[in-house]
Amino acid sequence: MSSIPRCKRWQGIVFRSVKDEETHSQVIELEGHLIDSNILSKVLDTVMDMQGDFEFLEFNVGKRKDDYSSTSIRVIGETGEHLEKIISELLRVGAMLQETPEVTYEASPGDMMLPDEFYCTTHHPTSVYLNGDWVEVESLMMDKHIIVEPENNRVYCMPISMVNEGDLVVVGDRGIMVKHPERPREGVGVFEFMNSDVSPEKPATSIIREIARSLKSNAVNDGKIVVVAGPALIHTGAAPYLAEMIRLGYVDAVLSGNALAVHDIEYALYGTSLGVNLEHVKAQSPRNHIAAINQVLKAGSIKALVESGKLTKGIFYELIKKDVPFVLAGSIRDDGPIPEVIKCSGEAQARYREIVKDASFVIMLASTLHSIAVGNMLSSQVKTICVDINPSVVTKLSDRGTSQAVGIVTDVGTFMPLLVNELKG
Amino acid sequence: MSSIPRCKRWQGIVFRSVKDEETHSQVIELEGHLIDSNILSKVLDTVMDMQGDFEFLEFNVGKRKDDYSSTSIRVIGETGEHLEKIISELLRVGAMLQETPEVTYEASPGDMMLPDEFYCTTHHPTSVYLNGDWVEVESLMMDKHIIVEPENNRVYCMPISMVNEGDLVVVGDRGIMVKHPERPREGVGVFEFMNSDVSPEKPATSIIREIARSLKSNAVNDGKIVVVAGPALIHTGAAPYLAEMIRLGYVDAVLSGNALAVHDIEYALYGTSLGVNLEHVKAQSPRNHIAAINQVLKAGSIKALVESGKLTKGIFYELIKKDVPFVLAGSIRDDGPIPEVIKCSGEAQARYREIVKDASFVIMLASTLHSIAVGNMLSSQVKTICVDINPSVVTKLSDRGTSQAVGIVTDVGTFMPLLVNELKG
Amino acid sequence: MSSIPRCKRWQGIVFRSVKDEETHSQVIELEGHLIDSNILSKVLDTVMDMQGDFEFLEFNVGKRKDDYSSTSIRVIGETGEHLEKIISELLRVGAMLQETPEVTYEASPGDMMLPDEFYCTTHHPTSVYLNGDWVEVESLMMDKHIIVEPENNRVYCMPISMVNEGDLVVVGDRGIMVKHPERPREGVGVFEFMNSDVSPEKPATSIIREIARSLKSNAVNDGKIVVVAGPALIHTGAAPYLAEMIRLGYVDAVLSGNALAVHDIEYALYGTSLGVNLEHVKAQSPRNHIAAINQVLKAGSIKALVESGKLTKGIFYELIKKDVPFVLAGSIRDDGPIPEVIKCSGEAQARYREIVKDASFVIMLASTLHSIAVGNMLSSQVKTICVDINPSVVTKLSDRGTSQAVGIVTDVGTFMPLLVNELKG
Amino acid sequence: MSSIPRCKRWQGIVFRSVKDEETHSQVIELEGHLIDSNILSKVLDTVMDMQGDFEFLEFNVGKRKDDYSSTSIRVIGETGEHLEKIISELLRVGAMLQETPEVTYEASPGDMMLPDEFYCTTHHPTSVYLNGDWVEVESLMMDKHIIVEPENNRVYCMPISMVNEGDLVVVGDRGIMVKHPERPREGVGVFEFMNSDVSPEKPATSIIREIARSLKSNAVNDGKIVVVAGPALIHTGAAPYLAEMIRLGYVDAVLSGNALAVHDIEYALYGTSLGVNLEHVKAQSPRNHIAAINQVLKAGSIKALVESGKLTKGIFYELIKKDVPFVLAGSIRDDGPIPEVIKCSGEAQARYREIVKDASFVIMLASTLHSIAVGNMLSSQVKTICVDINPSVVTKLSDRGTSQAVGIVTDVGTFMPLLVNELKG
Repeated sequence: MSSIPRCKRWQGIVFRSVKDEETHSQVIELEGHLIDSNILSKVLDTVMDMQGDFEFLEFNVGKRKDDYSSTSIRVIGETGEHLEKIISELLRVGAMLQETPEVTYEASPGDMMLPDEFYCTTHHPTSVYLNGDWVEVESLMMDKHIIVEPENNRVYCMPISMVNEGDLVVVGDRGIMVKHPERPREGVGVFEFMNSDVSPEKPATSIIREIARSLKSNAVNDGKIVVVAGPALIHTGAAPYLAEMIRLGYVDAVLSGNALAVHDIEYALYGTSLGVNLEHVKAQSPRNHIAAINQVLKAGSIKALVESGKLTKGIFYELIKKDVPFVLAGSIRDDGPIPEVIKCSGEAQARYREIVKDASFVIMLASTLHSIAVGNMLSSQVKTICVDINPSVVTKLSDRGTSQAVGIVTDVGTFMPLLVNELKG
Repeated sequence: MSSIPRCKRWQGIVFRSVKDEETHSQVIELEGHLIDSNILSKVLDTVMDMQGDFEFLEFNVGKRKDDYSSTSIRVIGETGEHLEKIISELLRVGAMLQETPEVTYEASPGDMMLPDEFYCTTHHPTSVYLNGDWVEVESLMMDKHIIVEPENNRVYCMPISMVNEGDLVVVGDRGIMVKHPERPREGVGVFEFMNSDVSPEKPATSIIREIARSLKSNAVNDGKIVVVAGPALIHTGAAPYLAEMIRLGYVDAVLSGNALAVHDIEYALYGTSLGVNLEHVKAQSPRNHIAAINQVLKAGSIKALVESGKLTKGIFYELIKKDVPFVLAGSIRDDGPIPEVIKCSGEAQARYREIVKDASFVIMLASTLHSIAVGNMLSSQVKTICVDINPSVVTKLSDRGTSQAVGIVTDVGTFMPLLVNELKG
Repeated sequence: MSSIPRCKRWQGIVFRSVKDEETHSQVIELEGHLIDSNILSKVLDTVMDMQGDFEFLEFNVGKRKDDYSSTSIRVIGETGEHLEKIISELLRVGAMLQETPEVTYEASPGDMMLPDEFYCTTHHPTSVYLNGDWVEVESLMMDKHIIVEPENNRVYCMPISMVNEGDLVVVGDRGIMVKHPERPREGVGVFEFMNSDVSPEKPATSIIREIARSLKSNAVNDGKIVVVAGPALIHTGAAPYLAEMIRLGYVDAVLSGNALAVHDIEYALYGTSLGVNLEHVKAQSPRNHIAAINQVLKAGSIKALVESGKLTKGIFYELIKKDVPFVLAGSIRDDGPIPEVIKCSGEAQARYREIVKDASFVIMLASTLHSIAVGNMLSSQVKTICVDINPSVVTKLSDRGTSQAVGIVTDVGTFMPLLVNELKG
Repeated sequence: MSSIPRCKRWQGIVFRSVKDEETHSQVIELEGHLIDSNILSKVLDTVMDMQGDFEFLEFNVGKRKDDYSSTSIRVIGETGEHLEKIISELLRVGAMLQETPEVTYEASPGDMMLPDEFYCTTHHPTSVYLNGDWVEVESLMMDKHIIVEPENNRVYCMPISMVNEGDLVVVGDRGIMVKHPERPREGVGVFEFMNSDVSPEKPATSIIREIARSLKSNAVNDGKIVVVAGPALIHTGAAPYLAEMIRLGYVDAVLSGNALAVHDIEYALYGTSLGVNLEHVKAQSPRNHIAAINQVLKAGSIKALVESGKLTKGIFYELIKKDVPFVLAGSIRDDGPIPEVIKCSGEAQARYREIVKDASFVIMLASTLHSIAVGNMLSSQVKTICVDINPSVVTKLSDRGTSQAVGIVTDVGTFMPLLVNELKG
């Protein structure tokens, strides 16, 4: 048993596993905070949902709350194939089999193709057992596959669009260890509590205070804060507050699209957003947003517009002044677009990923499209807040797997001034 | 023509109307700001929607923007009955016939019964032509009927449940003048602009500033500000802000139900709302709201609880300290309820109406049931703001006819601190 | 141990519990499907959330999936009071202490008052240990208290408004056994799957087919099907389908308010709902719903209107023809109301409870107010479906504790024809 | 005056306009169905909102409902500049000045640049007065500019991204005629009624019947029906119904993105959508959608997958079998994407426009991004239906100007089976 390398924090490891062909059974073993972290009930649920059977062979409960428990369970299928399916699901849940620790892989049959049996990733930290040791998967993203470079001892996640013929792709489910998040030993905070559901009936100011506290401690620890934002931020009058947050140093990158920049610049130049004056709340000229695009195109870029002295305030003004990176992804509904927009969706994804890969805190503000895109790129370890007036955005994020996102159902136009106020306080 | 008394502000008056049985036609006349206030297009729309025809006999356009226009139109139906139906609708829209100015009425056939041809009210200021003069309808409410006391020259609105046999009820549609709201001569403000739709993408801080300004000027002019509130106000942490607004003198009455009081008191006594601690955002004992009810029941009333020194903060503490009236209507979902709750829906309605009848500003905060109830009692002259996280509440208010309500789609938990901040500023 | 009566299905029973004053610790024991039903992780979560500590003394895992597990755990607090709080929460979660099985109770200090330490109920089946035996709590409702009649060996739930001075009320948390629902041993069905969240992105026709199947099997087994419905049912054109469902025998009671009946009758008499013609989707007279009320008031009741031959179709026509009971609760926003409406909220609650107490299937259709009211009255064993276009209704139901409600986010106007189609198929 | 060519249907034409510099006034004239189509009240509203003044010089009202009215109005500003601003807005609303009928244009200063004074289009049919004649603007889209080719007598709309240096761009607002939609002379149908708001409380089956009727008559008249769809169509189980609609010949093109195709193919191959089995509503493998992408990539295209016999049902199977064109636009959140997806947003827009330019009926099903993109490309003459569970999608469409879109707030999973049923009936 000592031959199995241990990760510092993990939940379920099988260290012996004997398959019995005759009885369609296999022994799996688990170790970790099995009970309170739900890993064990997930394993048993899975078996029962799939109409399998199980038998506990051994159960050593961790006596104190910091101790690990361990157990060995015989899982029984109706047929060999049935057993195989159950085991396969269990491995996704976090179990691991001992007898085949070495990960298996196959060469890709062609560019942008995977072997049929490719392993599909979760967004939980994952390692594979390669060359006799556990190697952590780099650039982890959800619903992707894993490329292996055995000679370099490297494994990493990659979108299918970047696969080349002959790349070695992890297949099957052996030799893979998924570390589900542990619950904190000393009670849960606002984040964990909020996480549970998307109800709008939550105490707003307390939550905002907690987020501000968390942002401050993140900034102190040099964590990278990434803001994902949609154009409703401008329409709702929140632009000056995000601009101030950038000035205060709480934003390390902004991910968005053409519309955020266009309306931010429209507001800075003409005082309107989508043609509505934000001070006096009156409809003015709907041509202003095209005029804003025209100004950027004539200047050559947002940066050039700032340098020419024409753009003197707003989110993008502050980003450029502070040299904070931003990526604008093109979309089918763009007017213009302005030169900074990356029109190729593949390239835009790559640039987003570059920004996101070392993020420690992601704030999603009133953007469905970009939030879900970013959600798919995030490890479940990254603190993620999603603020939207529409509870369905958070529901969608969860449906697509970004389970760690904390949903704040409110208007960004009222959320942002209160948040900035706390950040300054 | 001089025999027709003129109201100071009105929109459409017919001063001659000749019915031609043979051609199924009738001449109506209108006077007022016919064009820019849409009264004329509404009249023509109605005729066309009902497959009628029309012919302009005369059209005197008001030359300058403060002048009235006048017109006489021959409305033509396919049959006499068809004509009658069209004319009936036109009278609701704001037209009036000259030849029968005297209002018609019939005795109610029994307690809680109306004559079949009863006139059904709108929420726009309405007068009836009684004893040779225009008399304004008192206690106007939407979707009600009008009682006439010819001997006292009084007319008033009344719910059907309060009708006694023999009460004189206005029938048909003659002798009734409905004054639709005029648009301001000098451009529209935030209220009129917002009125147009329920989009959440509006500039929050500007709108809140404008509401604060409007509340201040209302307070200066001794207008009555009524707050309608639901329990989500407490869950979202907004209670201290409404309490402060009361302390600042911006609340002249509160209309709500059992839950608002219970959760306000639960929060004041135990720091929780529906069992969730609002400071640390942790689930605590779900029994706290029943315990709060028990405390009130033991004291005998909220007031007694304040006087006993046990209740020392919160919305209801401030209401009692400032002697601001409140009405709590019972509902099928009440726990308790506490003694102040009026369990009979008819009595609760009467008490609400008493509060609402001289209101000049109504703020609806996160309450569907009470907001729609109050909306039905309001004249269209009353400034009405409806704040809710859920756009459907405002849509429902409109569907039920409270067309003047301005919807602010946001979380009351973020709206209230910003509003109170502006009120103090 | 043999002295402890066993329920057939339960989850956690402590059968020895030794309190150690010096170490602030207490031994609790649990028995049941501890792991896969999450009872054990809930217990440990609770201890850790409350900053307590624990130690496993013994753990006997149920070997096969139908076997129970048992465990004894020493729970450790920082002080005696801290320990007491933790134990108190654990008892709510489903643990039980052996040494004081006999339930404790106190006389109510006055009418509509509870002893301060009253026990507050959940909606999970609950028993109390009385006179040396487990007695199941009758009329169980959520967030209520328990009355004991020791001489009759009876215990039952009661709203606080019905408490008389001297009634014996359960206090503290000893001698109470709460049975949390078990997960099915053989995998979950549509109900359990749906239960997990309120996403609108679910396969509609499959779910409707499953609901129809479940309704059919319920009807075969003489289960009582209760429909809770709001007036949007009429506006969306679903009335004929609910009428047909009644005719088909799938409705054993209807709970609603004034508006459902008024608009149903408006539609039956005039073809409109809130004045909108439902066939041609055109606005017609907004007075129709008051006219409908007037017709009912003149007839004396809905039943009389049916018997007079004037009301010949619709939901209430079918209810009366089939002698299916209905309860209409009054509310602050009622027009009329019609005679069948119960204006006193307390009496309406009592009548609702009467209907609901032996229900086995509750269908909530487009009604927030009545759904939440009914939700509070239901045991968690009752199959509950909530259909609403607005996901917030289901979220609210959950927030208020009706955790078993399965939310179907869709328009009742499209849901009902598809459901009736399946019921007939 | 006879020199002004008349369009068959238009609303406001100024045929004399005398500017008086001294009085800051200008005479405009209007002709058309001025009153009931709101053109006149819009003109007067605009003047008053901008604090201007007006005086009617002449008003000839159209006597019968099919007659046009004409009027001449002196518009008065406070300064010359103020007057200019007011006139400029009036021209957008639909007024026109006689004295400068010839449209003005300027050469573009560079690739992807506009002259600062460019005219910004609405989505209402527009003509410019060029070489002494009215020429209709081709490829009309909202919020774009107009390119003039005087030598060819051609004018057309173009996105700014396609402008080349030297292109002649319409500037100012003279010589431009915007035809606002007229209201039907004989009453409104379901479409116009629904148009008024986004309330979910509408009679579903009547509306669906009306849409089916409209689709049938569109098909008979060889109108082009374009479906815009999002992936929730698949998750909600509506795929077989859209597939059937294609088979029935009611779909002439489909506009969507990667996800619709991926989940449609996932469902066809594995019975799941986002890993959830749509028949038994159980979570199955989340890797299935990546596996579906892999199958398409290995085949080389969807078409190849159909031809290989592997893809045998579903939306895309039917599209390929019937040779119905589809365009899939890439987005930042795509997995894969599959080969048919156009990754460059500019190119995807161009392909969408190609499909949309001769559409007569557009059905938007559960897609925010693509619906708003398509909405921006549509003339206001195109019948547009937007079906979404989320009322905010329709609100957004309106906020962005697609005012003609009729919103149906319901689940596509229940809407589609009812629609297909009507189409077959």
